[in-house]
Amino acid sequence: MTTQTGERPARFASAELYAEVQQFYARHLRLLDSGAIDDWARTFTEDGTFEVPTVPAANGRAAIAASMHRAAAALAESGEVRRHWHGMVDVEPFGDGTWRVSCYAMVFATPRGGPSALFRVCVCEDVLVRVRGELLVRARRVTRDDLAP
Amino acid sequence: MTTQTGERPARFASAELYAEVQQFYARHLRLLDSGAIDDWARTFTEDGTFEVPTVPAANGRAAIAASMHRAAAALAESGEVRRHWHGMVDVEPFGDGTWRVSCYAMVFATPRGGPSALFRVCVCEDVLVRVRGELLVRARRVTRDDLAP
Amino acid sequence: MTTQTGERPARFASAELYAEVQQFYARHLRLLDSGAIDDWARTFTEDGTFEVPTVPAANGRAAIAASMHRAAAALAESGEVRRHWHGMVDVEPFGDGTWRVSCYAMVFATPRGGPSALFRVCVCEDVLVRVRGELLVRARRVTRDDLAP
Repeated sequence: MTTQTGERPARFASAELYAEVQQFYARHLRLLDSGAIDDWARTFTEDGTFEVPTVPAANGRAAIAASMHRAAAALAESGEVRRHWHGMVDVEPFGDGTWRVSCYAMVFATPRGGPSALFRVCVCEDVLVRVRGELLVRARRVTRDDLAP
Repeated sequence: MTTQTGERPARFASAELYAEVQQFYARHLRLLDSGAIDDWARTFTEDGTFEVPTVPAANGRAAIAASMHRAAAALAESGEVRRHWHGMVDVEPFGDGTWRVSCYAMVFATPRGGPSALFRVCVCEDVLVRVRGELLVRARRVTRDDLAP
Repeated sequence: MTTQTGERPARFASAELYAEVQQFYARHLRLLDSGAIDDWARTFTEDGTFEVPTVPAANGRAAIAASMHRAAAALAESGEVRRHWHGMVDVEPFGDGTWRVSCYAMVFATPRGGPSALFRVCVCEDVLVRVRGELLVRARRVTRDDLAP
């Protein structure tokens, strides 16, 4: 893997694609953080896969939405604000119209009436694909630093 | 609002504009963090507005500078270093030569001789406008996660 | 210095360069964080310099690699995961084919089996140069907020 071997892919993403991917994540995660779960789920492909620790893997947009609706309801109950922040974005073109995108990810948690705190540090590995002109997540795999073997 | 409804604006920002906005914030906030308050204030328009929690709203560059000089003096007194970090930048062209820019924002605080800590997690909503070729902030509204209703 | 005086360099970096620099750091720091120290060291020039607090300054790629191998071995021993995150990237062309790049930098630490925590907040000042088409670090100087005078 790039991050393991230091091998460089043939190309970097173009500036246009790189800016688009950054803006995609900015909007994608605002949807999640604002509780617009169905809109967020629509940024996955119909057959999108979602593999994150501590929740069952979800296959397909509907399953991803259902799983996240449950998590969002519990969060709303608790009154805690969560904020997901992607950065250190690395876009590796597969050359077939899809891209492997690796991001470092922070999650912040702010309890009702309490101070904001760092909740998690993760790595998010996505496969992005363009569907009718829009980037969508076809596959996501998130690993948490606190669960590192 | 985009982040609430998931509605996409007609366009993403171009790569050129997106890179410029990111660099604008990098310099804008270095000025603030380095105590160059007057230089920082000059990155607002003359009639710029600044609405942040827990300080009185300031209207106009002079009022913004005055308000921040007071805060900076208190901070210098305390010996605490503050660092403002914008990310997850979303640029939405209004189509009239101004842009709505929404950023996630972290503030770090490092007391003299002590460890760095996360101080605040915020959302910063700006209206940017180009004046004589340079981006400036016409309006800023910051909300803090720890003050969420 | 830009961040001190607010003087603007003649130009911002182009979108192409800015995207490349962001992707460079994304890969450069994944190499470090994944323990691929030799690959990481190859992203410095042969005569690269590395000046960070609390470790002896290293001159030359071999010395940089040796110094970081020692640090990585100690870290592996402890089982702690470190993650380096650059943002707020400011690219200032020197106009001679090299660039002064200033980044805000966070370091996260996650002890084996424990929660992730913010470890350090720093500023990283690099001189980048293009060698055979690839960006490399010719000089790096890191300052830590917790060691601010």
